Amino acid sequence: MEGSIAAEAFHDRTLSLDEARAYAARVLERFGTAPENARLTAAALVRAEADGLGTHGLTRLPSYGAMAAAGKIDGHAVPRTMRVAPSVLAVDAGNGFAYPAIEHGLPELAAMTRETGMGLMAIRRSSHFGVAGQPVEKLAEAGLVGLAFSNASASIAPWGGRRAVFGTNPIAFATPLKGRAPAVVDLSVARVARGNLLAAVQRGEATIPEGWALDTEGNPTTDAKAGLAGTMVPMGEAKGTALAFVIEVMAAALTASTFSFDAPSFFDGKGPPAAVGHVVIAIDPARIAGDAYLDHLERLALAIEREPGARLPGTRRLANRERAAREGVTLGAALQRALAGMGFAG
Amino acid sequence: MEGSIAAEAFHDRTLSLDEARAYAARVLERFGTAPENARLTAAALVRAEADGLGTHGLTRLPSYGAMAAAGKIDGHAVPRTMRVAPSVLAVDAGNGFAYPAIEHGLPELAAMTRETGMGLMAIRRSSHFGVAGQPVEKLAEAGLVGLAFSNASASIAPWGGRRAVFGTNPIAFATPLKGRAPAVVDLSVARVARGNLLAAVQRGEATIPEGWALDTEGNPTTDAKAGLAGTMVPMGEAKGTALAFVIEVMAAALTASTFSFDAPSFFDGKGPPAAVGHVVIAIDPARIAGDAYLDHLERLALAIEREPGARLPGTRRLANRERAAREGVTLGAALQRALAGMGFAG
Repeated sequence: MEGSIAAEAFHDRTLSLDEARAYAARVLERFGTAPENARLTAAALVRAEADGLGTHGLTRLPSYGAMAAAGKIDGHAVPRTMRVAPSVLAVDAGNGFAYPAIEHGLPELAAMTRETGMGLMAIRRSSHFGVAGQPVEKLAEAGLVGLAFSNASASIAPWGGRRAVFGTNPIAFATPLKGRAPAVVDLSVARVARGNLLAAVQRGEATIPEGWALDTEGNPTTDAKAGLAGTMVPMGEAKGTALAFVIEVMAAALTASTFSFDAPSFFDGKGPPAAVGHVVIAIDPARIAGDAYLDHLERLALAIEREPGARLPGTRRLANRERAAREGVTLGAALQRALAGMGFAG
Repeated sequence: MEGSIAAEAFHDRTLSLDEARAYAARVLERFGTAPENARLTAAALVRAEADGLGTHGLTRLPSYGAMAAAGKIDGHAVPRTMRVAPSVLAVDAGNGFAYPAIEHGLPELAAMTRETGMGLMAIRRSSHFGVAGQPVEKLAEAGLVGLAFSNASASIAPWGGRRAVFGTNPIAFATPLKGRAPAVVDLSVARVARGNLLAAVQRGEATIPEGWALDTEGNPTTDAKAGLAGTMVPMGEAKGTALAFVIEVMAAALTASTFSFDAPSFFDGKGPPAAVGHVVIAIDPARIAGDAYLDHLERLALAIEREPGARLPGTRRLANRERAAREGVTLGAALQRALAGMGFAG
């Protein structure tokens, strides 16, 4: 499959999580990212990789590097936070990576939430949100319930329409559980990720399963290229686009940010900063349900686990994470080659 | 279809919205509801009826009456509100109807939200939430963004499981728009309402379309009775049950209320009070996006409306409402007969 010279030069390597974080940070710094921003961004990518969420993991390094190199993402941005209301924290990501803005804001969001019972963090002038489950999981680890919303480049049409208006906007949720890791829900409103279409085309496959995509006329298609030119089918059909609307308003309208239909790609260095928005809501269950929250919720967790074949949201991710902590993650030959082609010496 | 005596006694009648509200209030009072609670509950049912949401409209009167008569709903409950944190309002519905609790809480929620930027109303010891879009629409009419969550009797299994754990839990959202009525999203996580299965069985139809229901083994079924004995298919499959989990935690765990799998039916007077919970979140967009919110959001609204065949969420409901204001609503013969059978003299 690969050219022999390139195949000789690069091999899949197994890295410990520490090694992977150091590698990713070196890549980001090489393309113009300040060390602290590179460290926080690398940590998020390696967490995604370890969790088995490869589309948001190390494979993002070439596009992140290209965006930083082109100034589409300002790798030296310093996020600024401002408490604009007793329960609202505004975060200006300065057109930098999202992760430093999230990391700077989360402790202030948590403190504000403990004070007033709930809080909202509105991040603007940001870029790719990454795994939406990560910030809410951190809130849940601190004993808070979290909800997160973000938008992304448009790929989903309003129901009945033909042109993409909404991104595969993610919504995420996490809650602490009693004596175990938080439950984490993280879902995109697309039925399947657009990456599945790209992969089919790259593998030379002409057809895709029914129900993945619509063509430019808004009709269902099993033609991979027609689907790529068209739009993605939302989860739950009309209900999915309704949910996409909710997320678009929460993430982009509330933060006065770029709507999905105006947002540039997160995969190349072309165009202006994305300036998309994210909203993270935190709730202190102790201020509402009192001390009984975790015991009460445990009854729901057990009702779910009682069903053979069912499991709590986020369970597979945790199993992947434990394995990655023991066995490390793979740094693929193709990724190393792509970065070398961009001038990264390793 | 109907017995001739009953058919002579009752005819479909057209009532103005005022007449319908008065009729519904008389029914509720007849079965043991205080006038103010009856008035607020009747207003919500007639609003649903006018909006074309008949399953939450006047057809609820016999079951609401039965629940009030049996004390499963306390028609004389007086809702109590308490601000338990700067941004959290707790509402004890006193095992009464949900609507008086919602109506008592909403103005306090709105005032709290204007003060702190956002607020959460946690309603507990409540019953059937009704149309989840109604409270958030009221918030949006007051210039606020609203999110609402409720749970209901279990009919959806965790993905991969066989027994119902979650209700067809609704999530609703509304936002003000510039110079026009708010956009309102109101969706249940079931792919189709369970009422469709009941109706099929009542019409003597043995089969239902694929994708509506699962049998008691968790397998897809087109047998209407097997579906009724089993569970409803969630919208978006696994993603739908993840969303059901989010809503269940928000509505029932946060409010220390009855989980769906323990909740009694909202359709008869049997069993204890449901004691379910609802959560309504309000956000003041002016405190986050500033004065530009409505202008910015209008760009999204226009992008949706630019697509032929697409429309803003809630549009059909508004058209129904306008027609009902002109033409009134139908009080069906079957409904009158059912109420007469319960001892309501009209």
